[in-house]
Amino acid sequence: MFTYNEIGTITSVKGIKSAGIHSGVKRKRKDLALIVSDYPCSAAGTYTLNKAKAAPVLISKNITEKGGKVKALLVNSGNANACTGEQGLSDAHNMQQLCADNLGLHKDEVLISSTGIIGEYLNMDKIKKGIENIVPLLSHNGGSDSADAIMTTDIKKKEFACTVHLKSGKVNIGGIAKGSGMIMPNMATMLGFLATDADIDNSTLKKFLTKSVKKSFNKISVDGETSTNDMVLMLANGASGIPISQDNSDLEKFQEALDDICTRMAKSIVGDGEGATKLVTINVNNAKSDYDADAVAKALSNSPLLKTAIYGEDANWGRIISAAGATDAEIEPENTSIRINDLPILDPHYKIITNGESLKQALSQKEITVTVDLHNGDSSTTWWTCDYSEQYIKINAHYRT
Amino acid sequence: MFTYNEIGTITSVKGIKSAGIHSGVKRKRKDLALIVSDYPCSAAGTYTLNKAKAAPVLISKNITEKGGKVKALLVNSGNANACTGEQGLSDAHNMQQLCADNLGLHKDEVLISSTGIIGEYLNMDKIKKGIENIVPLLSHNGGSDSADAIMTTDIKKKEFACTVHLKSGKVNIGGIAKGSGMIMPNMATMLGFLATDADIDNSTLKKFLTKSVKKSFNKISVDGETSTNDMVLMLANGASGIPISQDNSDLEKFQEALDDICTRMAKSIVGDGEGATKLVTINVNNAKSDYDADAVAKALSNSPLLKTAIYGEDANWGRIISAAGATDAEIEPENTSIRINDLPILDPHYKIITNGESLKQALSQKEITVTVDLHNGDSSTTWWTCDYSEQYIKINAHYRT
Repeated sequence: MFTYNEIGTITSVKGIKSAGIHSGVKRKRKDLALIVSDYPCSAAGTYTLNKAKAAPVLISKNITEKGGKVKALLVNSGNANACTGEQGLSDAHNMQQLCADNLGLHKDEVLISSTGIIGEYLNMDKIKKGIENIVPLLSHNGGSDSADAIMTTDIKKKEFACTVHLKSGKVNIGGIAKGSGMIMPNMATMLGFLATDADIDNSTLKKFLTKSVKKSFNKISVDGETSTNDMVLMLANGASGIPISQDNSDLEKFQEALDDICTRMAKSIVGDGEGATKLVTINVNNAKSDYDADAVAKALSNSPLLKTAIYGEDANWGRIISAAGATDAEIEPENTSIRINDLPILDPHYKIITNGESLKQALSQKEITVTVDLHNGDSSTTWWTCDYSEQYIKINAHYRT
Repeated sequence: MFTYNEIGTITSVKGIKSAGIHSGVKRKRKDLALIVSDYPCSAAGTYTLNKAKAAPVLISKNITEKGGKVKALLVNSGNANACTGEQGLSDAHNMQQLCADNLGLHKDEVLISSTGIIGEYLNMDKIKKGIENIVPLLSHNGGSDSADAIMTTDIKKKEFACTVHLKSGKVNIGGIAKGSGMIMPNMATMLGFLATDADIDNSTLKKFLTKSVKKSFNKISVDGETSTNDMVLMLANGASGIPISQDNSDLEKFQEALDDICTRMAKSIVGDGEGATKLVTINVNNAKSDYDADAVAKALSNSPLLKTAIYGEDANWGRIISAAGATDAEIEPENTSIRINDLPILDPHYKIITNGESLKQALSQKEITVTVDLHNGDSSTTWWTCDYSEQYIKINAHYRT
């Protein structure tokens, strides 16, 4: 069982301090976030599969894979430090070292992350001063400031925290995220940072996080682009005194809560996707295999024709069949059923159930659920996406002008 | 050697008659095209790989695969007769039979094709009357009318003809096409119809067409969607008296001309893509394999972030690296060079060559060529795409309203 804290954020987790400031990488808004644990943390991460991995991705990945303890996570927005070659890697190492020095830590106790424009070097003077300025501001109430500082074109701050009621006691999970956005201008980048005060070793934490990310952050799409900087990081500092180990009966409960908070974070990203006016849930049921279910759900989540139809509140179900039919999933298009929200639209053999006004009304809602039943097996999945508006084009075409 | 006829169209081919009329499937514009040969034709086709194949696709595919001779091709726009089940298949058979009856042909001598809204039944009364009305209008000058009648949201008519100068004499190739468009509203659909007066048997024609389509129609993308109705059909009626057989020394010359006219047709489709303001040529050079070259070129052709950047005339080369890096091609992002038109932008190790004004100016042109050198092998490819403007969203979201 788990319950959400209405004003929860990453510092809702015991022993986690944070701060967010303006360092000058961006023109005006906050652009530097620091999260520090009072206790050494297990750490786990999942990282972009893009072959062009940004320098901070390489560094943090290396740390979580080595499996030691960490105490801090430094994030800048406004510059992704991606496609910056050796200079970029050296800047990232310096950023990490400067942070460690100011906190009295070893370099490998500091994870780093960047988001923003790619192909430009970090202004290290500003980063250096920023680090000096942010450390004294660290506080157990600073989570919201760091949630603010990692935003790029996000409109809403993304922060969540829940309390998990385990047999052995209560633990907290808190997280902040940023969604698809760009700076001067840039690519859709997705970052998620989580902390828990449960006591979890590195390898168990990695298993927890990988499972949850698979069901949440890896099932969202704004525009089908995979960025150079995507990452989800999680820290576990044990401040609650409650241990969760692999053979622990609380394992499932904790996983369930982590799944849920990751899903909320992921949904908040697509709901606030560039130019989005609607949050769209895509259910694909009764596929022949998990691969097929995901292939169809991904195709629907990425289909410009479906996403523009939903934006225009136009019940063009043919676009669903066409997008599904173009995948390599084993499907029989004529055996597909489609529901929108609770309204049955199409039954097998292209039998149209609902058309016209009631459908138009279902599509006028802010949250749309498209459910596709392939009647071909027993694998199901859920993805989340957003609609596609002129605003997406404007944001990505005209940012500099 | 081949030369283009400035006012060329499909009836520039000897022994080809055509007509295009308004039958009433669309509200106002022409919507029925008929192409008839004075002589029996070899026929070849390439068809959509979408699993949801429209009824006319199934019928025409069956005919070209059986390999007999055909004499006519009937096309309606305004309704795709896709996702219409058994009723749709029966309507398509009737449409074909009615056409055959009116022309005094056997049913299997008539190819059919449809484009337009999916999931709605054809109005067979209108199709029947349309066929009765169009047959008397067939003429050796009617190619432009049929080019007109297959258009949906296309802005420009797409028609081409060239004369191929072979050792054994002159033959003509003519073609008409329609691009990504929608009716009330619909999906991107692509149709291409070609004829030649060369004398070519079915299996040789199939080889010619498959080779050319691979280099032209299969290397364009407007929005990454694969429709239920896509097809390219070619007729060869032998009216020139010039035979081209597999062991003929003119084989290569004819292939070259067919490649060229198919490429012109394909480029005219993306140049007139929904909302397009620029025609974009994507060259990927020195990939490790043909697969890798195509994977990268396809990813760039489909990348909303690159396409919006080109629309906004913003030289965001990071989006090129990121889109390429997200493919499963074997590439080393840091070894990539990028040129835009003739301007070198990036050299390996992220060495920036050109930035700012001169680049901005290169991007202000109507035709943009993006050349990516992967320095990883000797496979190269060329794709064509268009930019992504607000108009694409408007066309696909708001057509009905």
